[in-house]
Amino acid sequence: MKTEHCTQIEKAVAAVAEKAKSGIHHFYFVACGGSQAFMMSVQYMFDREIGIPSSIYTSNEFNYGTPKDFDEHSVVITCSHSGTTPETVEAAKRATEIGAVSIALTNEIDSPLAKAAMYPIHYDHGADAAITDKNKAVLYALAFGILKVVAPEQAARWESGLKAIDALEEATNRTVEKFKEAAVAWGKANKRDSIIYTMGSGVNYGEMYSLAICLFMEMQWINSSCIHSGEYFHGPFEITDYDVPFIITISNGATRHLDERACSFCKKFSDNVFVIDEADFDMAGIDESVREYYAPLVLGGVIRTMVDSIAHERGHALSVRRYMWQMEY
Amino acid sequence: MKTEHCTQIEKAVAAVAEKAKSGIHHFYFVACGGSQAFMMSVQYMFDREIGIPSSIYTSNEFNYGTPKDFDEHSVVITCSHSGTTPETVEAAKRATEIGAVSIALTNEIDSPLAKAAMYPIHYDHGADAAITDKNKAVLYALAFGILKVVAPEQAARWESGLKAIDALEEATNRTVEKFKEAAVAWGKANKRDSIIYTMGSGVNYGEMYSLAICLFMEMQWINSSCIHSGEYFHGPFEITDYDVPFIITISNGATRHLDERACSFCKKFSDNVFVIDEADFDMAGIDESVREYYAPLVLGGVIRTMVDSIAHERGHALSVRRYMWQMEY
Repeated sequence: MKTEHCTQIEKAVAAVAEKAKSGIHHFYFVACGGSQAFMMSVQYMFDREIGIPSSIYTSNEFNYGTPKDFDEHSVVITCSHSGTTPETVEAAKRATEIGAVSIALTNEIDSPLAKAAMYPIHYDHGADAAITDKNKAVLYALAFGILKVVAPEQAARWESGLKAIDALEEATNRTVEKFKEAAVAWGKANKRDSIIYTMGSGVNYGEMYSLAICLFMEMQWINSSCIHSGEYFHGPFEITDYDVPFIITISNGATRHLDERACSFCKKFSDNVFVIDEADFDMAGIDESVREYYAPLVLGGVIRTMVDSIAHERGHALSVRRYMWQMEY
Repeated sequence: MKTEHCTQIEKAVAAVAEKAKSGIHHFYFVACGGSQAFMMSVQYMFDREIGIPSSIYTSNEFNYGTPKDFDEHSVVITCSHSGTTPETVEAAKRATEIGAVSIALTNEIDSPLAKAAMYPIHYDHGADAAITDKNKAVLYALAFGILKVVAPEQAARWESGLKAIDALEEATNRTVEKFKEAAVAWGKANKRDSIIYTMGSGVNYGEMYSLAICLFMEMQWINSSCIHSGEYFHGPFEITDYDVPFIITISNGATRHLDERACSFCKKFSDNVFVIDEADFDMAGIDESVREYYAPLVLGGVIRTMVDSIAHERGHALSVRRYMWQMEY
């Protein structure tokens, strides 16, 4: 990871350590759409590993329906790729003003968001950027850095978490290679589907939510909905039929049972279920104690291969938008 | 409200008051599907009104991906209509065992859930039951009772919240009457739609989530997805087109701006947007200071009228299931 990113992360973590002296009461993750989705795995990780509450909000829900527990004892982590999402800038500004630790991740270090937060952290983007400098690696470096401060009893484990960043690129490449043929074939087979359901739980929910709202709805104009595996049997499963397409991720971690149970039922009544079992991921180089948390990052690579394939088959480039960036809204 | 319900609520509230002496660290709402959705408005209310964190989980996410903050300083509120949902029974049992205040709402007072929780609370159900004895009234009586204990500085407001229960039935009836013609016409006009999106925010999110997963997916086998109004512009809005149906609720409370903004855009590009503006609700008898929190309960009546209409037009009774209760899963 570049020195620039490391230095910014160190400053943010130092601020968290300083705040911890007077007490951190709540971690808030605040962002919109894909930027919110990509932080969900860390919110889950904090929820599981720290005895301090952590919550995640879409930015304007946080701004207008502000939780009462939000105060100077909060740590607020915001994210916006362009750094211009007005509601996320507003959330970062409010965090700064109230005296919370206000940390922001962005690809644009001179953006309004970077200026609104006390601790802006830059990440790289694009085909030429190293995976270790991109958004997910930078977020995880921040997350494990914070864990070292607030859950020092497992310091060795968090050190493994930091070390895993260097193994992420190869683990992703090897796993994508394993799934490639099936992923490409999936794109061909499903190009005429008008709705595709996604399903997952625990640490993977955010990645499956992002697949539904960003990749399918936003970038392919395909109807979609992310079903939590634990909710499937309590309503959504009645939509299952032989020709209803599902993509289900089975966690390699704590919530695996939920995914397995939903998948097993779904496959009985739909002939179109694409299963991504994280137990099949090649996670060599990533310590077992943090593999659950790294799985959604590797999953992202598999999903991208599927979506590239369907986009190609449909002749609908992932960059096309009809409203976003085309008009005021 | 019947004495039976009042007595059970009083016991639960007394237990919360007793726990408050040694410190309540977290309120957890844990349930599945419709039972989870119906508690979301109270989780939102607690989030807004109490400086103690509150979170909501689908039961098995709580059981398998258990948050670290869950301990004897927790209050856990579960719900299952039949009282037999195994994962919810398990959550209530764990709450009891860990020494948390374990409260359960159910229609079956002799059910496994009622036995697993320390403080079971019964609610009535069915055409003959008074609205004041049904699940939502009983939940709100519990919620405002707890608020009186943990946020006593606004005791008068919570007293208004309790008093509002008696005005709920008439407010709902009057409001449903106002929307009836449009709601019935909506069912006729949309009976052939293969997907219907629902949208809302803040206190109403749970009701719109329930509309998507229970009423449309489960009870009508219509594809659906609940979009948070604050997320709409960050992906989902690209699915909007002239013939894509949306049902949008505009809050009468804190998050109104999010709903108005999403609705205004959506109406520009879809010719099929059904708007339920809570500002048009007849909330007489419900104190203004708690109207935001009561709005989703009244909303439920309007939604039910729409769904009864579409079910009738489609000849698909709301009671029909192909999987639920038909087999083991």
